[in-house]
Amino acid sequence: MAEHTGRFITLEGIDGAGKSTHLGFIRDWLTAHDIAAEFTREPGGTPLGEQVRALLLAVDTQVSLEAETLLMFASRQQLLSSLIRPALQAGRWVVSDRFTDSTFAFQGGGRGVAAERIAVLEDWVQQGLQPDLTLLFDVPLDVASQRMAGSRQLDRFEQEKADFHQRVRDAYLQRAAQDPRFRVLDATRSIAQLQQDIAGHLAALLERS
Amino acid sequence: MAEHTGRFITLEGIDGAGKSTHLGFIRDWLTAHDIAAEFTREPGGTPLGEQVRALLLAVDTQVSLEAETLLMFASRQQLLSSLIRPALQAGRWVVSDRFTDSTFAFQGGGRGVAAERIAVLEDWVQQGLQPDLTLLFDVPLDVASQRMAGSRQLDRFEQEKADFHQRVRDAYLQRAAQDPRFRVLDATRSIAQLQQDIAGHLAALLERS
Repeated sequence: MAEHTGRFITLEGIDGAGKSTHLGFIRDWLTAHDIAAEFTREPGGTPLGEQVRALLLAVDTQVSLEAETLLMFASRQQLLSSLIRPALQAGRWVVSDRFTDSTFAFQGGGRGVAAERIAVLEDWVQQGLQPDLTLLFDVPLDVASQRMAGSRQLDRFEQEKADFHQRVRDAYLQRAAQDPRFRVLDATRSIAQLQQDIAGHLAALLERS
Repeated sequence: MAEHTGRFITLEGIDGAGKSTHLGFIRDWLTAHDIAAEFTREPGGTPLGEQVRALLLAVDTQVSLEAETLLMFASRQQLLSSLIRPALQAGRWVVSDRFTDSTFAFQGGGRGVAAERIAVLEDWVQQGLQPDLTLLFDVPLDVASQRMAGSRQLDRFEQEKADFHQRVRDAYLQRAAQDPRFRVLDATRSIAQLQQDIAGHLAALLERS
């Protein structure tokens, strides 16, 4: 990216991988380094996006696979135009809890929408914009399930069966192997160990000109 | 289309062109010819689509041009998979009050989304499926405005200025000139005259093998 623009960081992983736990740490790290940042999440992040999110996560919503994919990208388009692009252009960093890799993993790997079809929408919406750094929190399924069990009411995605989550994890790992913007974090380790790794990746990103 | 499949008819036009007035006539004509048919509308037509419609037509919704376009196609994808394709495959006819030509006219001609970008989403969602017949109800702007005046509360699209509606009309006429599935109806004429024309176009469509 050009100098004096912000950095775009995304957090990815299967449900129960623990990524959201680390948002507070990232926020503190950025503040300590005097970096202005916006925090957002997908689907959602804007008034329109939150309405789409509510629609998608409702247990009784009848929605075709491909309509779901288009709704995800509609929410993403709004988030890009109203928050992500303006922030980056103003030199602020942006941290998003999930972004397009989630669509490739959940709708693609998990539910079977062809990656080539998702890539058409990615191009349509992002027009070349990609995260500068993607932290992939990776855990085996049994660890994720234990973390989720009994914690709260499960939404429509979380109710899916184990083989679905395995396909999602595999799709993430496959994408991570092909794109150098990914850092795969072994999320079975302690929070302290993970924070040390995250701090290292953030410092490296800050040093990149 | 293959034999024994239904026919797909769409009604298009600027707001106030009077197209919805003729839905009852078309319904009666099909019944009189013993043709089973489904009637629907866009945006909307499914539970998901009606939620998206409500979101799009709300006067206070903040939505980017391109997010709006994606939401339209999400609604369309759901309508195609849950209603239009199954009905046509079962040999029923489908009549839709607006379809993709509205997106080219309103989001394209009216608001300036490039037609090439809309065509990418059209291909993604329709995968080659097109209406067999499109009735374009065409009226000059002043006639449409008179019809709309005082009739009811105007929604977000209807509140647009006159030059917007002129661009929408021009975009419709331009598309109609390029595709033989269109029949342009001079909607300033009497309802009786229009019904005679519509009946002729329906009869011609029925005779096509």
